[in-house]
Amino acid sequence: MQANSEFTQQASQYMMQAIALATENVTSGRGGPFGTVVVKDGKVIATGVNLVTASNDPTAHAEVMAIRNACQSLATFQLEGCDVYTSCEPCPMCLAAIYWSRCRAIYYGNTAADAAKVGFDDSFLYDEVKKPLSERRIPIVQMLPDEAWVSFAAWRDAATKVVY
Amino acid sequence: MQANSEFTQQASQYMMQAIALATENVTSGRGGPFGTVVVKDGKVIATGVNLVTASNDPTAHAEVMAIRNACQSLATFQLEGCDVYTSCEPCPMCLAAIYWSRCRAIYYGNTAADAAKVGFDDSFLYDEVKKPLSERRIPIVQMLPDEAWVSFAAWRDAATKVVY
Repeated sequence: MQANSEFTQQASQYMMQAIALATENVTSGRGGPFGTVVVKDGKVIATGVNLVTASNDPTAHAEVMAIRNACQSLATFQLEGCDVYTSCEPCPMCLAAIYWSRCRAIYYGNTAADAAKVGFDDSFLYDEVKKPLSERRIPIVQMLPDEAWVSFAAWRDAATKVVY
Repeated sequence: MQANSEFTQQASQYMMQAIALATENVTSGRGGPFGTVVVKDGKVIATGVNLVTASNDPTAHAEVMAIRNACQSLATFQLEGCDVYTSCEPCPMCLAAIYWSRCRAIYYGNTAADAAKVGFDDSFLYDEVKKPLSERRIPIVQMLPDEAWVSFAAWRDAATKVVY
């Protein structure tokens, strides 16, 4: 953890905006205490808050919503050169979403351990993702691998495709 | 990996449907070779295919789409008692999404290593998620933890909230 003085005033403002979104999401009754801001070239291009219960979507975490909104805003599926300011360390879903989106850097406030203290599964999920498949809480089993490979062969052999 | 003969004919049909969705997603030019089926009480309640490039949404993987569709179909944010049949082992984003959705079991065809063979980052992402923050490819840095805790305290102290 770096001391706050090491961050620019602008970076602190982005993080304070993410935190304010998180707090407002709770006080408004909309959802969980999570807010995210996506910044490109010194401008906030998108924000997101946790809408899991408000929208009946367990994937609607603040980071995922902010990435979706940023991509819609820029009409792209990749966010090169974008920085993510998020009020809590991304859970494994959101961390991987940030990787898939090709964002440049992640700044976070609360830790996954902090999230566990107020009832969220983030730390548990990091433990699960690290485990061999056979030891995970949700059973995960392979079937029909030869049949499934047909899909990948189709992709490999496709004459035209948009790689991502 | 279990032998195919250990699976019921019905389970094999669900997986074949997921594989067919994946292959059709490639041949139609819509997106990547991934398809998912969500089953509850012996019925397919939702399907999903990879729509990353088609919808400019890097989170629109087949499993995420199937979970979103299942939740909309059942008007809930939790999928207890649901099984996921997916043409490829879920990436860390999709695995965590399945955990957040509270699905019961996961059946998959291709492995993350297979996905790497045809150009996808799934194995790389599993490696990244397992690393300490300081060793990750995308820089991830904490800032303003005291300020961020205010959001969590608001959640902890909220008189009414929908826990998920």
